[in-house]
Amino acid sequence: DHIPFAHTRYSEEEMAKRSQEFYELLNQRRSVRFISNEQIPMEVIDNIIKAAAGTAPSGAHTEPWTFVVVKDPEVKHRIREIIEEEEEINYRRRMGVRWVTDLKKLRTNWIKEYLDTAPVLILIFKQVHGFAANGKKKVHYYSEISVSISCGLLLAALQNAGLVTVTTSPLNCGPRLRVLLGRPTNEKLLLLLPVGYPSKEATVPNLKRKPLDQIMVTV
Amino acid sequence: DHIPFAHTRYSEEEMAKRSQEFYELLNQRRSVRFISNEQIPMEVIDNIIKAAAGTAPSGAHTEPWTFVVVKDPEVKHRIREIIEEEEEINYRRRMGVRWVTDLKKLRTNWIKEYLDTAPVLILIFKQVHGFAANGKKKVHYYSEISVSISCGLLLAALQNAGLVTVTTSPLNCGPRLRVLLGRPTNEKLLLLLPVGYPSKEATVPNLKRKPLDQIMVTV
Ligand SMILES: Cc1cc2nc3c(=O)[nH]c(=O)nc-3n(C[C@H](O)[C@H](O)[C@H](O)COP(=O)(O)O)c2cc1C
Ligand SMILES: Cc1cc2nc3c(=O)[nH]c(=O)nc-3n(C[C@H](O)[C@H](O)[C@H](O)COP(=O)(O)O)c2cc1C
Repeated sequence: DHIPFAHTRYSEEEMAKRSQEFYELLNQRRSVRFISNEQIPMEVIDNIIKAAAGTAPSGAHTEPWTFVVVKDPEVKHRIREIIEEEEEINYRRRMGVRWVTDLKKLRTNWIKEYLDTAPVLILIFKQVHGFAANGKKKVHYYSEISVSISCGLLLAALQNAGLVTVTTSPLNCGPRLRVLLGRPTNEKLLLLLPVGYPSKEATVPNLKRKPLDQIMVTV
Repeated sequence: DHIPFAHTRYSEEEMAKRSQEFYELLNQRRSVRFISNEQIPMEVIDNIIKAAAGTAPSGAHTEPWTFVVVKDPEVKHRIREIIEEEEEINYRRRMGVRWVTDLKKLRTNWIKEYLDTAPVLILIFKQVHGFAANGKKKVHYYSEISVSISCGLLLAALQNAGLVTVTTSPLNCGPRLRVLLGRPTNEKLLLLLPVGYPSKEATVPNLKRKPLDQIMVTV
């Protein structure tokens, strides 16, 4: 059944102002790889996960995601061990010369101290399929796109709250991390985001972003 | 080279308030399939595309996307013709009984009036690969995830500005729409979002969203 849609409308001036300010907020977001070990309020994390995983659109409204929030220092450390082990092999053998060259400007490597220092790690699992009431597999249409969209909302929510992260895709670590965290076999790790405040000496690569005329075409 | 990271930090109270308000803003977002033909300010669209395609993270900073903004009524109508033609075949023959059943609650079908009425259609193309300075193919790591994340930022920016949309994935329409819009062969249509104000009589499916304990696990 359908219900009337309730809409909040702003004046054109307000729209211009709100959209400009939101752009400025998001434009300050950077991937931060130096995260302080200071604790963050868990109420804020709940709100941010609700904003992302609790409101995102999804193909046929399947909501095909689980957000695992890791605070336990021992589990974080075990995650770091698994990722550094696999990432060293990725960098040395699996990724190939070109990929490693493309990453040079970011100065990333397989040492990921932020996995210990960040007070929270958010591991985003994609549910490849779900289960119907009768226990049968339920198809999840466009699950990877939907889960990534919810990650986009998560990034906006983190930025809005004054927290930092780096979106990472731990290549080849999915199966071991899934087992470590006790997630079922229909879930696949898509992204891992360490969350916290930046450390005092945090630096970021001096990147340029494409201007509007390289990303937008008007017809 | 690396530069110091500039950070805006809020008090814990402000973080709680900002994160709660942002959740409430995003929680009002719904996929709206009834869009008014009223014009919208193009300056706002520019800001929203800048917020999404101009700030989103991407694998190895490839920014692998082109956002095509269609305002021309004839081009919009041609897009509608292509999509309705393909979607009728999708619903009748390609999607299968189960998919069509799963969509029943949304009451969607292949008639998409919003493609004519919405003042703006945003077609999001994923660049499967780019080009290096020497003309050689440049790999785009994780391009589909990156583009979908930028779509998540787009949805947040639209909601923040008081505009509505529905995230759609026009199955099997990509190649014809790519040719219609003159996009190069390294670009693949990922998503299409009609944008505008809701029409006066807009309704939405009466869906429930999963509560926090079904989407978040804490370790
Ligand atoms: C990747 C993706 C593809 C979608 N494809 C379509 C589509 O082709 N047509 C449509 O009407 N809605 C589509 N939707 C919208 C979903 O049906 C909608 O998000 C879901 O029913 C939840 O409703 P809500 O967005 O109002 O919360 C899509 C959503 C996502 C995330
Ligand atoms: C899908 C995706 C995967 C990424 N994977 C990694 C990663 O594994 N490690 C890392 O340090 N950064 C990763 N990044 C971050 C990008 O390198 C970063 O977004 C890009 O360099 C632009 O910098 P910015 O986010 O500061 O704008 C990833 C980003 C995306 C969107």
